[in-house]
Amino acid sequence: MTTSTPQPAAPRSAPASRPGYVHGYSATEARRLGDQADTLADLLHSGTAYPPGSRVLEAGCGVGAQTVHLLAASPGVLLTAADISADSLAQARARVARQVPGARVRWHHGDLHRLPFPDDSFDHLFVCFVLEHLADPAAALAALRRVLRPGGTVTVIEGDHGSARFHPHGDAARRVVGHLVRLQADRGGDALIGPRLHPLLTGAGFRDVVVEPRTMSADGARPAEADAFTRRTFVAMVEAVRAEAVAARLTTAEAFDRGVAELRRSAEPGGTFSYTFSKAVAVKP
Amino acid sequence: MTTSTPQPAAPRSAPASRPGYVHGYSATEARRLGDQADTLADLLHSGTAYPPGSRVLEAGCGVGAQTVHLLAASPGVLLTAADISADSLAQARARVARQVPGARVRWHHGDLHRLPFPDDSFDHLFVCFVLEHLADPAAALAALRRVLRPGGTVTVIEGDHGSARFHPHGDAARRVVGHLVRLQADRGGDALIGPRLHPLLTGAGFRDVVVEPRTMSADGARPAEADAFTRRTFVAMVEAVRAEAVAARLTTAEAFDRGVAELRRSAEPGGTFSYTFSKAVAVKP
Repeated sequence: MTTSTPQPAAPRSAPASRPGYVHGYSATEARRLGDQADTLADLLHSGTAYPPGSRVLEAGCGVGAQTVHLLAASPGVLLTAADISADSLAQARARVARQVPGARVRWHHGDLHRLPFPDDSFDHLFVCFVLEHLADPAAALAALRRVLRPGGTVTVIEGDHGSARFHPHGDAARRVVGHLVRLQADRGGDALIGPRLHPLLTGAGFRDVVVEPRTMSADGARPAEADAFTRRTFVAMVEAVRAEAVAARLTTAEAFDRGVAELRRSAEPGGTFSYTFSKAVAVKP
Repeated sequence: MTTSTPQPAAPRSAPASRPGYVHGYSATEARRLGDQADTLADLLHSGTAYPPGSRVLEAGCGVGAQTVHLLAASPGVLLTAADISADSLAQARARVARQVPGARVRWHHGDLHRLPFPDDSFDHLFVCFVLEHLADPAAALAALRRVLRPGGTVTVIEGDHGSARFHPHGDAARRVVGHLVRLQADRGGDALIGPRLHPLLTGAGFRDVVVEPRTMSADGARPAEADAFTRRTFVAMVEAVRAEAVAARLTTAEAFDRGVAELRRSAEPGGTFSYTFSKAVAVKP
C-alpha cells in the first residue's frame, strides 16, 4: 500500500535551506541516481535492516533511488519518505510502486529542517547523500534528532569525492573532479563530507557514533562493474556539471573534456577506479 | 623450529634493484613497522590462510612485521621468508622466535628478482608493502611467478598514500604527504601503487586477478586506534622523511612541521583519518 500525506506547496524557505542541488533534477540525473543506487545497494545497505513495524523516516529520499533498497532490506517497516522536491517525490512514489509494490510508505513533501512530526516519533532515521548538499548539516542533524525517539538510531551515508582514486592517474581528471567539488561548495554543500560525519553526529548530540568506510572498486577487467559504477555513476556525475563549470570559468570546455576522457580511461582494460563512502550509525541518548 | 639457509653476502645488484628504502632501517622504523602490522593485522590478513604443509614464500619479509601474522593465520605452513637486507632478516628471525616460537621458517638472504629456488617450487606467494619500493615491480612479479607452481596463488598487499583522507583537512598536511610520495618516487618507488596492482598482476601473466580495497579508518573518539594507526603508523612514517625532505629542498623545516601538526589533529577528538590498502590475489595459470 502506498499512502500519502497531502503535499503542501514548496516551503518558502527551500532556496535558503537547500540552495540548489548541484546534480540537478533532469531525467538523466534521475536515471543516474537509480543506476548508482542499484550498483551500490549491497555495499551501502548491508547491515541496515529494521524490524517489521519500525517507524522509519528517510529524510531526503529524492527520486527514491535508495528508498527501494531500504524497503527491500526491511520488509514490513512503516516508512515515511520526505523530500523538499515535489517532482522528486512523485518519481520516488512511482519507483516504489513499480519495484516494491507492497510497501507501506507515507510521502511527505517538506523541508527536513522543519518537519511537522511530533518529538520522538520515529524509531530510526535514514539519510543518504543528503547532508553533502546542505549549507548547515549540523542544524539538519539537530532537527532530525528531535523527531527520533531516545534509543533510536540514525544512519547516515555520504561520499567523499576526494577519496576517488583512478589509474591511470591524470592531472586533468583530478581537476574536473575538483570543479564538481568547487561548484557544490559554491552552493553551500560539501562533496568531501564523509570524513566529517563523526564530528557532525557527535556535535548534534548523538552517541555511540560508529563510522565505517565502505569502499567501492572497479577495474577494467570487470567491464559490467566498471560501466555501472565508474562510467554511469561517477563519470556521469562529473560530466553533468560541464556547462556550469565552463560558465563559472573554472575551466574551458576542452580542458574539461580532456579530464573526463582521462577519467573514462580508468574504466577501460588496464584501468582501475575506487571511491570510499562513509556509513555512520549513531544513537539518540 | 626456526631453520635457515646460509646467508650470502649482499648481492652486488642490490642498489640497482632496490635503490634505497625510503623509510630507512632504524630501530624506530622497525618499531613503527611492528606497530603498523599489529594494528592492521585483521584488516590486511583476513582471508589469507594457507593449509598446513603449504610451501609459502614471503618475498620481502623485512623485519618480520607481517611474517608473524602470516604464521599466526596459517599454522603448519612451510614458510620461506626472503629479504635483501641481512639486518632486517636478523630482526625478523628474532621477532618470529619471540612471537611464533613453533613456526618452521627457512630464512633466505637475497634479491627477490633472482631467487635461487627451482621453478614451481612454492604453492603460495605473499608480498606485502614491497612492490611500492621497487623500480620495476612488473619485473619482480615476473621473477616471483617463476618460482610459483601452476595453480598456486600470489597475494599482494600495497598502500596508496593518495588515498589518505583526514579531517580537519589542511593543505600543509596534504603537502607533507606529497613530499613522502615524491621522495619515494625519486628512489624509483611508487607510494601510490595500490590502484596499479590489477594491471601489474595481469601484465605479469597471472590470472583470476581480484583486487579488494581494504580501508582503515580511525577517529579521535577511539583514542587507542587513532594513536596506533594515525599517529604511530601514518604520521610517524611521514615524519621520518623530515630531514630528507628539507635537504632535498622540497620544503622548509617550518612548513614540514606545520603539515605534520595538521596531520596530527586528525588523531585528536573531532578528527578522523582513513587510508585505503589494496589486497590482490591472483593465480599462476
